[in-house]
Amino acid sequence: MRQPPLFGLLTDFGLRDGYVGVMKAVALTIAPGAQLVDISHEVAPQDVEGGAWTLGIAWRAFPVGSVLLCVVDPGVGSARRAVALEVAGRCFVGPDNGLFTYPLEGESEVGAERCVTLDNPRYHLPSPSATFHGRDIFAPCAAHLASGVALEALGSLVDVATLARLPIALRPAWRGDALVGRVAHVDHFGNLITTIGPRETRLALAHPLARISLGAWTIGARATHFAAGPQDEPFFLQDSSGALAIALRDGAAAARMDARRGDEVTLYGLDGASPSASDVGERGG
Amino acid sequence: MRQPPLFGLLTDFGLRDGYVGVMKAVALTIAPGAQLVDISHEVAPQDVEGGAWTLGIAWRAFPVGSVLLCVVDPGVGSARRAVALEVAGRCFVGPDNGLFTYPLEGESEVGAERCVTLDNPRYHLPSPSATFHGRDIFAPCAAHLASGVALEALGSLVDVATLARLPIALRPAWRGDALVGRVAHVDHFGNLITTIGPRETRLALAHPLARISLGAWTIGARATHFAAGPQDEPFFLQDSSGALAIALRDGAAAARMDARRGDEVTLYGLDGASPSASDVGERGG
Amino acid sequence: MRQPPLFGLLTDFGLRDGYVGVMKAVALTIAPGAQLVDISHEVAPQDVEGGAWTLGIAWRAFPVGSVLLCVVDPGVGSARRAVALEVAGRCFVGPDNGLFTYPLEGESEVGAERCVTLDNPRYHLPSPSATFHGRDIFAPCAAHLASGVALEALGSLVDVATLARLPIALRPAWRGDALVGRVAHVDHFGNLITTIGPRETRLALAHPLARISLGAWTIGARATHFAAGPQDEPFFLQDSSGALAIALRDGAAAARMDARRGDEVTLYGLDGASPSASDVGERGG
Repeated sequence: MRQPPLFGLLTDFGLRDGYVGVMKAVALTIAPGAQLVDISHEVAPQDVEGGAWTLGIAWRAFPVGSVLLCVVDPGVGSARRAVALEVAGRCFVGPDNGLFTYPLEGESEVGAERCVTLDNPRYHLPSPSATFHGRDIFAPCAAHLASGVALEALGSLVDVATLARLPIALRPAWRGDALVGRVAHVDHFGNLITTIGPRETRLALAHPLARISLGAWTIGARATHFAAGPQDEPFFLQDSSGALAIALRDGAAAARMDARRGDEVTLYGLDGASPSASDVGERGG
Repeated sequence: MRQPPLFGLLTDFGLRDGYVGVMKAVALTIAPGAQLVDISHEVAPQDVEGGAWTLGIAWRAFPVGSVLLCVVDPGVGSARRAVALEVAGRCFVGPDNGLFTYPLEGESEVGAERCVTLDNPRYHLPSPSATFHGRDIFAPCAAHLASGVALEALGSLVDVATLARLPIALRPAWRGDALVGRVAHVDHFGNLITTIGPRETRLALAHPLARISLGAWTIGARATHFAAGPQDEPFFLQDSSGALAIALRDGAAAARMDARRGDEVTLYGLDGASPSASDVGERGG
Repeated sequence: MRQPPLFGLLTDFGLRDGYVGVMKAVALTIAPGAQLVDISHEVAPQDVEGGAWTLGIAWRAFPVGSVLLCVVDPGVGSARRAVALEVAGRCFVGPDNGLFTYPLEGESEVGAERCVTLDNPRYHLPSPSATFHGRDIFAPCAAHLASGVALEALGSLVDVATLARLPIALRPAWRGDALVGRVAHVDHFGNLITTIGPRETRLALAHPLARISLGAWTIGARATHFAAGPQDEPFFLQDSSGALAIALRDGAAAARMDARRGDEVTLYGLDGASPSASDVGERGG
């Protein structure tokens, strides 16, 4: 028996109202036996950027053949496109509003991708509402993919280059010898995960004079893992996605430093690290 | 191989304490391979009305043959009945305290139903506690149903007419030309979902003079979907269950309007909409 | 076809960031078809004691053969051991930091156990990070167990007696005629669940003069179930794990009494209950 593909779900629906359960019931009616895996339903309401980040750290953990249903969709019912997209062997289904920025960013690395707009009503629920495409369009289309329908059957081909992407501002930039990035995410533990990528992070960890500045804070302490950080003082380390992160041992760096997503983070003191050699924006899976 | 039925779960247990996981482990021990789907475990503690509403919007998404285990049960251990109920081909298992009001309300529409009280200890865990029937009685009975046991085996037949239902006050009422309903639910996005049903909602959307009043607010703006609403002003629309809802674009109407469940909502200005033609209380699935 | 074992998950990752989804995707890639059951991901960050308690009430509900992946791991990347442990036919995988205290406490009762440290890299993801062993070591090892790999294959044998256990202070102690325990957990409903075990709880319920003191409160009221408690006054009862719990009908005892985990709870007035006959610390599953 063919093992059904993994079927990941990412939304901003929260877990209280039953909307996620409805979407799952619809999906499992179409694709019985699909193996559902929640990525998150606690993306902040209508926070496309937050959803994109979360998808960005998660999608590579899903094997080739997986289907990822992603609905953070403030534009539901508007002219924004509903799409299904294949990147690196995974199928992504959701609104074309930038939610798929990270898989798309990796495209040159991961190979060919295809995209369709979900304009074939045969794969929607009958009489879709204008307010819950998660239930009426996205979940059914994703479930049809999971049960073997071809991507192209779901609708008309779309040029991948036309898909919405979030501002490239997310990538850090060199200002002289300093690399200026941002806090990309504040996680559940209060860790500040930045847009500074694996290569610069490794350089910073190796360079005794490297410093991170964020607001009024300057951080020189660093560690290989959380428990090795100093007591009661923020430090930096390489997080599990490869990015530079700021943490506080047995506490929440975000609260201590009064920091939030979008805050500017500067890495300096890396003499000899040249912008041209940079892999800025690289991101592990 | 027969695909196992969907097995929905709705509780007020929260996700922190492990109670839901215990209930699932019990169910899967009895019905290995059952396909569990969480509807919600974030119903407010002991909020039977909130649980009933959530079940009300969710249950039709589960296909015929599904089993829905529902435990919002402030009366656990008391004389309130524990029941299993079949409505429209779905089996509901839980306390007889009004939690099943919405499926029962739809009964004339959806066909015959049957109900038993769970008085056959053969299908309970041994030595049930007086405080956790979810684990000891409801989950085992639901799991036995999911694995093919007949409803009637679980206990004595109960007259469906005797089942608890929440006050019919939930249905809106005409006062002259005004339809007076209530806020039935405030969802995760801060949308106010009312008891005003699909037909009146469609009339209101079509009628330029229709107005909604709630507290000190009078709302004339309306939209077909969230992103089409006005900037920075509450508006009404038809939500995905068909009901009239009040929303705020890129914000939470509930916070802006200081509104909460139970607040009175009046629809007026619908000249020519006669009470006799009303399908008040109709509810999509 | 062999039914795959239940695969329970307990973490302090929260549900927002996608870390749980990543871990599940990794596990299901290795053990396709495993039946995942969330115990909790809402253990407070780095709260090993809270995680241990939650595992303590949940693990027996999982049938023999289940795998339980438990990651509350402030010491990730440090010298703390990563282990897989078999107790009473269930396999536990996670850090050796006391998280498995409750299953280990029951060891004499439940029979032989075995333990290995996870030092065989063949069963890890390639190039494990120093910050996310849940994804890189624990989930893969647990998934290999779930797909039939022998415990001993995962690493070197460890003497179970050397495993970390949380302070025995969790067990109540007699001071003269009074049994002094603690609040072990405050659950989602605001119930205070204590370390006072089944036997003393039954004695207390049966003894009209038994009293519970906690802070400034003295509680003599008791009930067999929640709805039988007095109106508007804290009372005690036997909770579903067998322990003595303090509850408030239709309310939260913890908020009313301003109580929290670790608070001292004294049971007195049990004339004739002798320490020597005590089964202090006994705990149902």
